[in-house]
Amino acid sequence: MRSGHAVVLRSYPEGLPRTTDFEWVSETTPEPGDGQVLLRILWASIDPAMRTWHSARPGRGVVRPLGTVMKAVAVAEVVESRNSLRVGDHVVGSFGMREWCVSDGADVTRVLDASIEPRLGLGSLGHIGLTAFAGVHKVARAQAGETVLVSSAAGATGALAGQIAAAAGCRVIGIAGGPDKVAICRTEYGFDMCIDRHAETDLARAIRTAAPEGIDVFFDNVGGPTLDAAMQNMNALGRVAICGTISVRSSEPGHGPRHERLMLDKQLTVQGFLTSQFEVDYPEMLESLSLLHSEGRLHLREVVVEGAENAPLALEQLLAGEFAGKVLVRIAA
Amino acid sequence: MRSGHAVVLRSYPEGLPRTTDFEWVSETTPEPGDGQVLLRILWASIDPAMRTWHSARPGRGVVRPLGTVMKAVAVAEVVESRNSLRVGDHVVGSFGMREWCVSDGADVTRVLDASIEPRLGLGSLGHIGLTAFAGVHKVARAQAGETVLVSSAAGATGALAGQIAAAAGCRVIGIAGGPDKVAICRTEYGFDMCIDRHAETDLARAIRTAAPEGIDVFFDNVGGPTLDAAMQNMNALGRVAICGTISVRSSEPGHGPRHERLMLDKQLTVQGFLTSQFEVDYPEMLESLSLLHSEGRLHLREVVVEGAENAPLALEQLLAGEFAGKVLVRIAA
Repeated sequence: MRSGHAVVLRSYPEGLPRTTDFEWVSETTPEPGDGQVLLRILWASIDPAMRTWHSARPGRGVVRPLGTVMKAVAVAEVVESRNSLRVGDHVVGSFGMREWCVSDGADVTRVLDASIEPRLGLGSLGHIGLTAFAGVHKVARAQAGETVLVSSAAGATGALAGQIAAAAGCRVIGIAGGPDKVAICRTEYGFDMCIDRHAETDLARAIRTAAPEGIDVFFDNVGGPTLDAAMQNMNALGRVAICGTISVRSSEPGHGPRHERLMLDKQLTVQGFLTSQFEVDYPEMLESLSLLHSEGRLHLREVVVEGAENAPLALEQLLAGEFAGKVLVRIAA
Repeated sequence: MRSGHAVVLRSYPEGLPRTTDFEWVSETTPEPGDGQVLLRILWASIDPAMRTWHSARPGRGVVRPLGTVMKAVAVAEVVESRNSLRVGDHVVGSFGMREWCVSDGADVTRVLDASIEPRLGLGSLGHIGLTAFAGVHKVARAQAGETVLVSSAAGATGALAGQIAAAAGCRVIGIAGGPDKVAICRTEYGFDMCIDRHAETDLARAIRTAAPEGIDVFFDNVGGPTLDAAMQNMNALGRVAICGTISVRSSEPGHGPRHERLMLDKQLTVQGFLTSQFEVDYPEMLESLSLLHSEGRLHLREVVVEGAENAPLALEQLLAGEFAGKVLVRIAA
């Protein structure tokens, strides 16, 4: 038995999740049984999708019972093993926002190469990198010479999507909120241009000014009026990859301009995607990501939050747009 | 010189085209010059897309000058030839709503096999068949065992789309307006079910009742609230092929519920398409259509309008939903 702590869900968020929806509690972790491993969580990831995972009306996936551990993707070290995993292995999975856990391996999505920094398994070489790669290449099929627009460009997924598109020979334009994020996109992530949405009253016009040649691919993390503004600038045969809809309330999506007529006239494709639908391609995609990373073409700012007990606050701040880059919770790293 | 007649555009329609937007005039057709052919138009096609072709704000394509001949896809017989086409050949192209024309061949999209009834080159074995086939197979990639919903199911494109999907092993559900069209879809076109949208106050619920297993593919000719109702019933990884948006005004598309959140949660793809983007696949698609036709699997009612002078009225009636099936204008057939 190990004594540790975990963040548990106490109430379903009304609107965005708040710290008061979660509680930091003690828990004891049993010895691993036959076929199981004991995992020490090193790092956990804070992701925008957490608002969906903990919702009473999640739209996708199941409703998590109150009292269960906050769902989070994490990287952990195998401390004891009674299955084929080896002590010392670094594994990635949805282990939750906690210090210890016992796993039968079913929730392990990947064993990291020993050469990979564990926290990269939650970022450029993990689910964030896979999401960005899938959106750019599998969904939108961005081609060299095309113009790619990315919303929430200073966020972890947007930052990687922009760099993956640039590496494919695309011209890349970001949309970010505020001069600091814009500067990060330009100087650290190498976007050709970045629009400050806080400084623009007419986003559609700002996109047109930034891309008078039109947009071929829109990698969207935002939805709502940001999507509408981009749609007005799409070139014929353009593709929109819907990766996130952070501006749209899940229970009340609201109304907006109709796009079907425009989509017909311009032969546009709009595709919502979850990374998991490309699971069969993960090995090939991770190989491409590793190559880009080794070439120094995948920069990603990290925001490190100390201790799992601070995860609910970090989620609240992430959803308020307070961070630029990948938000990681250091647990036992 | 041949004396004949043509329908010309006199005013840009406000809203839907009316007979008063066109005029029936005499015209003389010169002798074909070197490299040209003289064509006698046999049949011309009345298509919903004509409202776009003759609009002052067409959304796609160019604005046609007032006084030009009404654009129409037609099948014609080569009467005199000073190029590689042979006298007696049946050719398909955008020759316009007229009796005679001289062509240099650039507007000829296809020479029909002598074995094909000329008017089929405007229907099952022409642009209508190609559109239906492209939407079902190239865009929506309908698979055996899936449930396919088709709007405007008694219209020419919808009727063929439903039969092409059925031939691919899909369960096919139509949406049509009124008991007569519903009966035609069920008995002549073999739809598994057909919803009478005039009889339903809640179309989304009617679709749910008809397809409790959910919709995998929606072949949409309508847009607007019909699209919204279908979206609520899409299965995960569903595909929507936007072939037409007859309910949406081109100048003012209006507002509707936002779909991006749903599209993300369900990993949906919505694609607007024009048949021309699959031009490279026409030979293969026509081969498949010919096979289906020879097997008796492509039924299509024909509504025959006598004389090009009646084409504007026929277009008005088509857009008012008064016809079921392919509307053809008999000119010299």
